[in-house]
Amino acid sequence: MNDAETASPTLGGEVGLVEYHDFVSSEPFTFEDGRVLPGFTLRYETYGKLNAAGDNAVLITHALSGDHHCAGVYSLNDKKAGWWNNIIGPGKPIDTSRYFVICSNCLGGCQGSTGPASINPETGKAYGLDFPVVSIRDMVRAQARLLDHLGVTTLHSAVGGSMGGMQVLQWALEYPDRVRSILPMATTARQSAQAIAFNEVGRSAIVQDPGWNGGDYSPGNGPNVGLAVARMMAHITYLSDEGLERKFGRVRKSARTGNHLDVEFEVESYLRYQGRSFVNRFDANTYLYFTKALDRFDLYGRVASAGNEGVEHPAETSSATDACTHLASAFERLKARCLVVGFTSDWLFPPEQNRAIVHAMLRAGKDASYAEVNMDFGHDSFLVEAPELYALVEGFLNS
Amino acid sequence: MNDAETASPTLGGEVGLVEYHDFVSSEPFTFEDGRVLPGFTLRYETYGKLNAAGDNAVLITHALSGDHHCAGVYSLNDKKAGWWNNIIGPGKPIDTSRYFVICSNCLGGCQGSTGPASINPETGKAYGLDFPVVSIRDMVRAQARLLDHLGVTTLHSAVGGSMGGMQVLQWALEYPDRVRSILPMATTARQSAQAIAFNEVGRSAIVQDPGWNGGDYSPGNGPNVGLAVARMMAHITYLSDEGLERKFGRVRKSARTGNHLDVEFEVESYLRYQGRSFVNRFDANTYLYFTKALDRFDLYGRVASAGNEGVEHPAETSSATDACTHLASAFERLKARCLVVGFTSDWLFPPEQNRAIVHAMLRAGKDASYAEVNMDFGHDSFLVEAPELYALVEGFLNS
Repeated sequence: MNDAETASPTLGGEVGLVEYHDFVSSEPFTFEDGRVLPGFTLRYETYGKLNAAGDNAVLITHALSGDHHCAGVYSLNDKKAGWWNNIIGPGKPIDTSRYFVICSNCLGGCQGSTGPASINPETGKAYGLDFPVVSIRDMVRAQARLLDHLGVTTLHSAVGGSMGGMQVLQWALEYPDRVRSILPMATTARQSAQAIAFNEVGRSAIVQDPGWNGGDYSPGNGPNVGLAVARMMAHITYLSDEGLERKFGRVRKSARTGNHLDVEFEVESYLRYQGRSFVNRFDANTYLYFTKALDRFDLYGRVASAGNEGVEHPAETSSATDACTHLASAFERLKARCLVVGFTSDWLFPPEQNRAIVHAMLRAGKDASYAEVNMDFGHDSFLVEAPELYALVEGFLNS
Repeated sequence: MNDAETASPTLGGEVGLVEYHDFVSSEPFTFEDGRVLPGFTLRYETYGKLNAAGDNAVLITHALSGDHHCAGVYSLNDKKAGWWNNIIGPGKPIDTSRYFVICSNCLGGCQGSTGPASINPETGKAYGLDFPVVSIRDMVRAQARLLDHLGVTTLHSAVGGSMGGMQVLQWALEYPDRVRSILPMATTARQSAQAIAFNEVGRSAIVQDPGWNGGDYSPGNGPNVGLAVARMMAHITYLSDEGLERKFGRVRKSARTGNHLDVEFEVESYLRYQGRSFVNRFDANTYLYFTKALDRFDLYGRVASAGNEGVEHPAETSSATDACTHLASAFERLKARCLVVGFTSDWLFPPEQNRAIVHAMLRAGKDASYAEVNMDFGHDSFLVEAPELYALVEGFLNS
């Protein structure tokens, strides 16, 4: 629990003007599903300077709808800075005057990295559903190649929330000797039935939109209605009951348009805006692929090892204690120090699921701790300005 | 909190074979929105016998997707009994050997009562969006005419969950001298921002489905995809995280069909089935109308009086204490004894919202009490066989 009054985050400067880069890997890449691409592109940004030893890097991993642009602005007219600008910068909790900060758009993404919307060189058309199935582990293994390219020997830390938290956990398991610490937040070691259920509703909305056409659509002409509906629904799961009540309550829009069943409350108008604007920046197939990657993520049931020989445990039918034993055994290979942060009002990846990660790590004898931040922004709390979170991140990274 | 072991519900018999009836009111009916229909039909069922005084009736009010068929079967081959058959019958908690039980499909509905799918005598076509806006109060006032027709002078009790709970509350406010007791459960005195948000996503899915066509579609050819998506999403809000985890967890379907993004987990398959089957029994326009009736229900902000002179309070901007004062003032006209039942895992109309009703009634000096039942079925808990709920209902009705 936090007390905002007692937090004393370092007041920091701005990263300022940034630009993105494209890393092109020309080595074949074998996905977890066995399929091979001849290579791939990852769009990424870096802030700060890598030291001579190549070991002061902090990897930022993004959530479902995030991207590589996590700090700074592209021009002085840019009204919106990167998505985690509040925490990244010189003197900020993720201090770019100390650390070389890296963030890439995930493999399978739609913000410049290779994904279902990319052109398949064999056909000259977008991959669509021919794109290989993407897992959290595939995302991490692609990032490792980017780090090779950048000369990063060891990560000082990997930090991310939500799907980013899953990547961070996977990093520590996949490359135990290459990550000194991890800071997953608002995440889970396996997707719950409820979270799968919400994702499935979103996918249903998309694939039943005639615009989806089996995944074969031209840019801008995809399942815009289905994707907007999926986003509207998902957006509710990113917030909280209390937060929505505080922000919107039952306040009505002053001017109404349309028929008597149309938008009436502010909260409706807000959600519709979220849906509409998402369609302009996100590809529906990537949404399908990434939600599947989330749903299949399960460190309880599967110990993904560096050698690709995943082991299936029958975790589905086991008791809670057995499940924890499985998770603890998954963490045996872990070497990184770990701080997991949960948020009180997060009901998508609730505090219990975050605590369970640390519990299993502790059972496996690892250096792990859990902190909980009391905020009413729901799952999205990790993205919000929060002195208590800043203090935790700063304390952990610099210890 | 309950202890299932200590509950001792009466073991009861079955209502058995039942049939529905249609009550046709030929008097003009003025909706809250000012529109007038020349009359309306309510489809209803009754079980048990009305006594000579006409005061042993128990009105059952249904939820969003419910109907008039709450007990018994239509034929001996009928595999599925009415939706609340577990609690209604001779010797059951709502005892048909003592009480004359009535349940009608709400005005605006699509299970035999007049609603948007009914034929507008002026045009010879279905009303569609020309149907007047329906409020919870309209539903209640239509039910009152049915009770007149049946010779019911006074309701021994009105009992209902969710939207049924709203009707029950409205009954006690609209006809304070005609209701001796009310038993609302899993309900709220006003729809929260989060609940409005979920409804709006469902409505967006429906109205953006090309099959909706501005509400003008032929039976069976409406917005089937949008309605199914709306139902899938809503269904998640009727259950609970724990319940879904217990029932489905991450169990996968044994046989998979379709592409690699298609149904994989049992919970997905279950939800899709819920969506598909709903489309076959429910009208999309009624779904739009009823969700709007839910969203507009607000006893905090509006004291609906028998004389139609609703008073608007600026409850939207007031503090929690002010809000409670408004609600207490709304309950001043109440005469019925009241028991509100909340369910621990209900996150759509959570325990706090149910408790708040009783709190305000107590402030208004009314005979009101609250009980909470510990079940993991979420909002739908009130529909599930539950000895502790049975004991509460039986105790309250017979006291």
